[in-house]
Amino acid sequence: FIKTILQDVKPADITTLLYEFNSEESKYVMDLLPIETQAEIISDLDRDTRKRFLKVYPPAEITNFLNQLASDDTADILNELPIKEREQVLSGLEPELKGQVTELLRYEEHVAGGLMAKELIKARYHWTVVECVNEIRKQAESVNKFYAVYVVDEHDKLLGRVALQDLIVSDAKTLVADIYEHDVVSAETYLPDTEVADMMKKYDLESVPVVNVQGQLVGRITIDDVVDVITEQADEERKMMAGITESVEEDDSVWRNTRARLPWLLIGIFGGLMNAKFMGLFEAELVRVTAIAFFTPLIQATGGNVGIQSSSLIVQSLANPDFVDEGLWKRLVKVFFVAILNGVFLSVLVFGANIVLFQEYRLSLVVSLALFSVVLFASFIGTLTPLILNRFGFNPALAAGPFITTTNDLLGLTLYFFTVHIML
Amino acid sequence: FIKTILQDVKPADITTLLYEFNSEESKYVMDLLPIETQAEIISDLDRDTRKRFLKVYPPAEITNFLNQLASDDTADILNELPIKEREQVLSGLEPELKGQVTELLRYEEHVAGGLMAKELIKARYHWTVVECVNEIRKQAESVNKFYAVYVVDEHDKLLGRVALQDLIVSDAKTLVADIYEHDVVSAETYLPDTEVADMMKKYDLESVPVVNVQGQLVGRITIDDVVDVITEQADEERKMMAGITESVEEDDSVWRNTRARLPWLLIGIFGGLMNAKFMGLFEAELVRVTAIAFFTPLIQATGGNVGIQSSSLIVQSLANPDFVDEGLWKRLVKVFFVAILNGVFLSVLVFGANIVLFQEYRLSLVVSLALFSVVLFASFIGTLTPLILNRFGFNPALAAGPFITTTNDLLGLTLYFFTVHIML
Ligand SMILES: [Mg+2]
Ligand SMILES: [Mg+2]
Ligand SMILES: [Mg+2]
Ligand SMILES: [Mg+2]
Ligand SMILES: [Mg+2]
Ligand SMILES: [Mg+2]
Ligand SMILES: [Mg+2]
Ligand SMILES: [Mg+2]
Ligand SMILES: [Mg+2]
Ligand SMILES: [Mg+2]
Ligand SMILES: [Mg+2]
Ligand SMILES: [Mg+2]
Ligand SMILES: [Mg+2]
Repeated sequence: FIKTILQDVKPADITTLLYEFNSEESKYVMDLLPIETQAEIISDLDRDTRKRFLKVYPPAEITNFLNQLASDDTADILNELPIKEREQVLSGLEPELKGQVTELLRYEEHVAGGLMAKELIKARYHWTVVECVNEIRKQAESVNKFYAVYVVDEHDKLLGRVALQDLIVSDAKTLVADIYEHDVVSAETYLPDTEVADMMKKYDLESVPVVNVQGQLVGRITIDDVVDVITEQADEERKMMAGITESVEEDDSVWRNTRARLPWLLIGIFGGLMNAKFMGLFEAELVRVTAIAFFTPLIQATGGNVGIQSSSLIVQSLANPDFVDEGLWKRLVKVFFVAILNGVFLSVLVFGANIVLFQEYRLSLVVSLALFSVVLFASFIGTLTPLILNRFGFNPALAAGPFITTTNDLLGLTLYFFTVHIML
Repeated sequence: FIKTILQDVKPADITTLLYEFNSEESKYVMDLLPIETQAEIISDLDRDTRKRFLKVYPPAEITNFLNQLASDDTADILNELPIKEREQVLSGLEPELKGQVTELLRYEEHVAGGLMAKELIKARYHWTVVECVNEIRKQAESVNKFYAVYVVDEHDKLLGRVALQDLIVSDAKTLVADIYEHDVVSAETYLPDTEVADMMKKYDLESVPVVNVQGQLVGRITIDDVVDVITEQADEERKMMAGITESVEEDDSVWRNTRARLPWLLIGIFGGLMNAKFMGLFEAELVRVTAIAFFTPLIQATGGNVGIQSSSLIVQSLANPDFVDEGLWKRLVKVFFVAILNGVFLSVLVFGANIVLFQEYRLSLVVSLALFSVVLFASFIGTLTPLILNRFGFNPALAAGPFITTTNDLLGLTLYFFTVHIML
């Protein structure tokens, strides 16, 4: 019964379903499905679930699944298996796939080589359209999705491509050499995956050929895999901004969730203790005018907000592939003016509010002055930190997370008590 | 000279270049290019730049550009023009494009109808492959990228699709009815663009047909436009988390940058003033034990960090199209245990540190107890807020921004002073 229902459902929908079951229940459902569908589902699962799930299968069955998949997905799944199992599974693969996958396993995960698949249609430039079509017929079984035929010379050097649509409308005897596009965008194997993504976004590509340093065609990357890269990138950035260790998800175990959060909370705690020790230095002032203490949350919160705003804008600029560096100087001048405008506005407002709420003229003045300087400093630090991180090859989004928040709290406190100390 | 150089450059690269020039300089460069390239560049520009840029062109020239573009891009650009100009430009378009665009202008921007283009290849199910190929020949000029032929019945109802590759390998006399895929994914015109994106991600599609409520084929969406939707979505979310009004970018004017930040800073200021007023209520306690004040930054910072972590995890779960709602109850139980673990660990650590740093046994106990309850409460609020926002149709990422930070500061202070009040 389940079997007949599942026949009309798409693999990706079954995948969604399986997330609700445990590995044994899932295996029961899976065993009812044709092997191609099972394989597709396994390649669709997220990494953690798949690892857990594949534990209930012997290597021979995993081999059967992988024989159904494209070379890129096979390589990815092999990379997740324990080494011993990986060797067993690899040796059981069909010879052609085995050769392809062995080559793919050489590349790191986050570069073009690690993203590409070996399945593609290659045509020599002296072929005719008919020869191309015959080649497509031959390959049609193993290459399940393609958009173009890649044109190479006798040394396998990439010359260009013929879109399928151009092949269809061309006469059978036309030479490939006469219809191919010369000027194609390609990625070298070591290009970082995020740059592959930028490239495909920029030129609106659905696939991109990959070449080695000699310019030889070695694979191709399709947009579906790049969309996954883009999604992961956004995810990673969100986690950095929130102070969560990269690899965790809400549905992971309690223990893993705790561990993912602790390091960042500890940074905050450490900062908090430094705040306490620092305020301790000003105990005399606090005893004299207790009301000083009332305004630390205001100062710190504003510093934090301004800092996050500034760094996020930089992170966003850096993420835009069309981003043109205006030059540090021009950028800082602008940050300066925005900070002045915001700072003046907020300080005046707070000054007015404090006069009304607390009737303390001198303290209100101190608070507003400190607030103004916090807005100014936090803007600069928020702007510079991601730029510096980026310069040294770190993800600038780190600068929009708990690290900058903690720094800003200390900065705010220092500026505030410094102002208090000289003016009150 | 410039002209010969630019001939070999791709339009998208020229676009990148133009961001460095002002409108007049850009126009000078543009005038050297063939009109198709000019048109493509204009459709590549980001919205703000394009608006500024098109001001230097008379409506007749804009019409010439749009006549080179696909219907979706034409509709988008028309939507950005002032109404009067829009009518002038629209009336000058070539009849076919004009009809297509007029239909597209009816749809809202952020639904499938607003994303789709009218250019597609349609085949009747009783056609042969040869008839399809002839249709493709006819349309090849106006449809610049296609991946499949869509199959419809006599009432234009979508039946399925034939991938170009299947068309190529099929015999000329084969009937479309015999080779088309029946079970294709399609989007209805009113489907939100983010759901179109989820759909294309899930099924790894490079294009999706759009149907109206009668099931008739009315357009198709390509992955390049959906990648833009995904990027914009990530951008918007980042801005929400940072407390920046949606539409601003770093390179916008000082004034616009200031305005984008102010509302969120004001929320923080308002919270800060409430914090001050609230602490004022405990002036007596503060006068008695000044050291109480030392620990407000620690408590508030931890509350803020925990809150952002919790809400980001929820935002991420909700963004995952494969997300399975575990049920509120199960989720809260888990949040509870993670919070207990983190809370106990941090409180014990802080207790030890405080004993060493300040030698105040009773105050250290109060701080640690307050810290523990803040971790607990902030976890729950951070978890519930995005879920509630999501339930009522708001973007849950709002809950990871300054709003939750401000609430958490107040929450932390309240819990801390409540503990102080009863225990010290
Ligand atoms: Mg897939
Ligand atoms: Mg890989
Ligand atoms: Mg694009
Ligand atoms: Mg792939
Ligand atoms: Mg994939
Ligand atoms: Mg996980
Ligand atoms: Mg484009
Ligand atoms: Mg549109
Ligand atoms: Mg996918
Ligand atoms: Mg388009
Ligand atoms: Mg577009
Ligand atoms: Mg802008
Ligand atoms: Mg804070």
